[in-house]
Amino acid sequence: MTARVTSGRATSGRADRLSKRLPDAGVDVVLVTNTVNVRYLTGYTGSNGIAVVGPETRVFVTDFRYVEQAAAEVEQSFDRRRSPQHLIEGLEDALPPGELRLGFEAAHMSVNEHARVRELLPKRIELVATTGLVEDLRAVKDHGELAAIRAATELADEAFAVLIAGGLIGRTERDLATALEFEMRRRGAIRPSFDPIVAAGPHGALPHARPREKQIRSGELVVIDWGAQLEDGYCSDCTRTVASGVVSDVAREVYELVLDAQLAALEDVKAGAAGREVDAVARSAIQAAGHGDQFGHGLGHGVGLEVHEAPRLAQRSESVLAVGNVVTVEPGVYVPGEFGVRIEDLVVVTDDGCEILTSVSKELTVVD
Amino acid sequence: MTARVTSGRATSGRADRLSKRLPDAGVDVVLVTNTVNVRYLTGYTGSNGIAVVGPETRVFVTDFRYVEQAAAEVEQSFDRRRSPQHLIEGLEDALPPGELRLGFEAAHMSVNEHARVRELLPKRIELVATTGLVEDLRAVKDHGELAAIRAATELADEAFAVLIAGGLIGRTERDLATALEFEMRRRGAIRPSFDPIVAAGPHGALPHARPREKQIRSGELVVIDWGAQLEDGYCSDCTRTVASGVVSDVAREVYELVLDAQLAALEDVKAGAAGREVDAVARSAIQAAGHGDQFGHGLGHGVGLEVHEAPRLAQRSESVLAVGNVVTVEPGVYVPGEFGVRIEDLVVVTDDGCEILTSVSKELTVVD
Repeated sequence: MTARVTSGRATSGRADRLSKRLPDAGVDVVLVTNTVNVRYLTGYTGSNGIAVVGPETRVFVTDFRYVEQAAAEVEQSFDRRRSPQHLIEGLEDALPPGELRLGFEAAHMSVNEHARVRELLPKRIELVATTGLVEDLRAVKDHGELAAIRAATELADEAFAVLIAGGLIGRTERDLATALEFEMRRRGAIRPSFDPIVAAGPHGALPHARPREKQIRSGELVVIDWGAQLEDGYCSDCTRTVASGVVSDVAREVYELVLDAQLAALEDVKAGAAGREVDAVARSAIQAAGHGDQFGHGLGHGVGLEVHEAPRLAQRSESVLAVGNVVTVEPGVYVPGEFGVRIEDLVVVTDDGCEILTSVSKELTVVD
Repeated sequence: MTARVTSGRATSGRADRLSKRLPDAGVDVVLVTNTVNVRYLTGYTGSNGIAVVGPETRVFVTDFRYVEQAAAEVEQSFDRRRSPQHLIEGLEDALPPGELRLGFEAAHMSVNEHARVRELLPKRIELVATTGLVEDLRAVKDHGELAAIRAATELADEAFAVLIAGGLIGRTERDLATALEFEMRRRGAIRPSFDPIVAAGPHGALPHARPREKQIRSGELVVIDWGAQLEDGYCSDCTRTVASGVVSDVAREVYELVLDAQLAALEDVKAGAAGREVDAVARSAIQAAGHGDQFGHGLGHGVGLEVHEAPRLAQRSESVLAVGNVVTVEPGVYVPGEFGVRIEDLVVVTDDGCEILTSVSKELTVVD
């Protein structure tokens, strides 16, 4: 597969690419307020900073608390400023003169914040809603990003192996989730990419179950969904469903169904495939087996600086996969009161297929 | 001190109190979309759910993934619904008939989401921006909430004692932060209420420093800012600055200055005090000593289901303290390139003062 190569700082070139997208979005410059998007463009990892990007404009504004951090992190091409009050006030004289169409991130800016920004800017500046300008760039990973996601995945895989080696039966869901998280941190994760899910038996029928203070018993399916986020911000995401001893024939059949659906969907992942088509491959297999109404979430989502980002594999997705996308493929079947099964890999989209980053076995693993 | 007493479920009565606020906000019913506000009102702890509250209206809507969880968690007075698509679609026939002024949370709803909700609702419904309706209720804690915050604080205090007993010198900031977090989890915290800060020497001059892979050396001030979140969602927040061996006279003087400022501000915390007045007490003490420009953040903030919530103690705060508020009092002085000092307690506002929940000593502790 091919992917973009960056030179110098990891963020270099990103503001240029964003700038090239602005004419199609009908704006002269764009105000980036979403913190993850700001990080992607500038390298800044703090919580209160904004960036403005246009053909001739590279401005970054933060407050007192983050001036030193910004000096150390923000890419040199940005004019770094400090605003004593609302960050937008540190901005105006850095914008091009005259009438200006200033894009804002309408999926992230609140109605109140929009009104405040409108009030603080002079009339010469028109605010124009934009959606997904930076997210679309983020969806296609460069080599450095792929290496980062690969490292997060390897680390998470190793932590899982250690967890499983310690056995399941008699440990609580909470203990297992905590142990998994600690094992990831011990290996260098800055945090889990989300609170790990460990859900046994009927609890596994809740797709977003929270670990309980309840011991795993023999003969249950246990859904484990976890990921690591590393210092550079990149995430991994994986789910495995394992058996604590011998499980029922029905549980085993559903497991094989979900695995077959997952393998079939993986076959269909490649550049040019529509997110909804790939979703449909897994969904139709599960529907054909009579479990369609027990697979109530999308097939997958992009992973990068956030554990849920573009593109989406889902029934109503309008995404078309591109080389360098990193997505999960995670069908599930949830039988209320009985058990749940979900199997999730993280993959990189290539020209003619995908590379599976996750290395954990998908055979039904029996762990005592 | 006095505080409201709840009977039955922790959430009971909250929707009634919200409903009583609606006429002043100029709305008939209110759409609550912020997940923490939804939790506060209904008990629901999942990530995709909305509530609508009015004099005769109690509706909760979620999607497939959370139906079981909602059945277990959401207060009985709410009509619980499932929407296959946008949650707002599960709502309309549950709203009162005729012309309706529907408040929405303008500080939380994005510009895009607002447009989508507008599109999905019939014309008879007018959308009206509201701000802080639920947050204002949340700012005044009842007995159950105070007990929860007290428990989180005690747990976090104990974890800190264990950390300090293990020594500082030679351990990295990252190791210390991880150890503190593990100690909180081991004692039952569901997670830290934010990523703990451990910042030694010049790194302490960054108010929101992230722990580094760097060993603590002898003779440094070390800023440690941490908190626990328990299963019930309630948070604690505390900062201590400790010395790894003997520190400079200047460092010691600044420590005493910050401590005096903190003690003076605590004296001023009581029901009826303005947030900006309490901030000014600490700020003027620090300014008088010539460090005014090195205290670049507000004095404090409310703590509850979120670690930052209403009310605020800050230069531009419009909050007036009320009995049952839980706030931090945390002045700091940050000397770039040298060190930082921050001292933070969590307190409950009472009629004539405050009760300090934090039990960790504020004498400058020397730890090798």
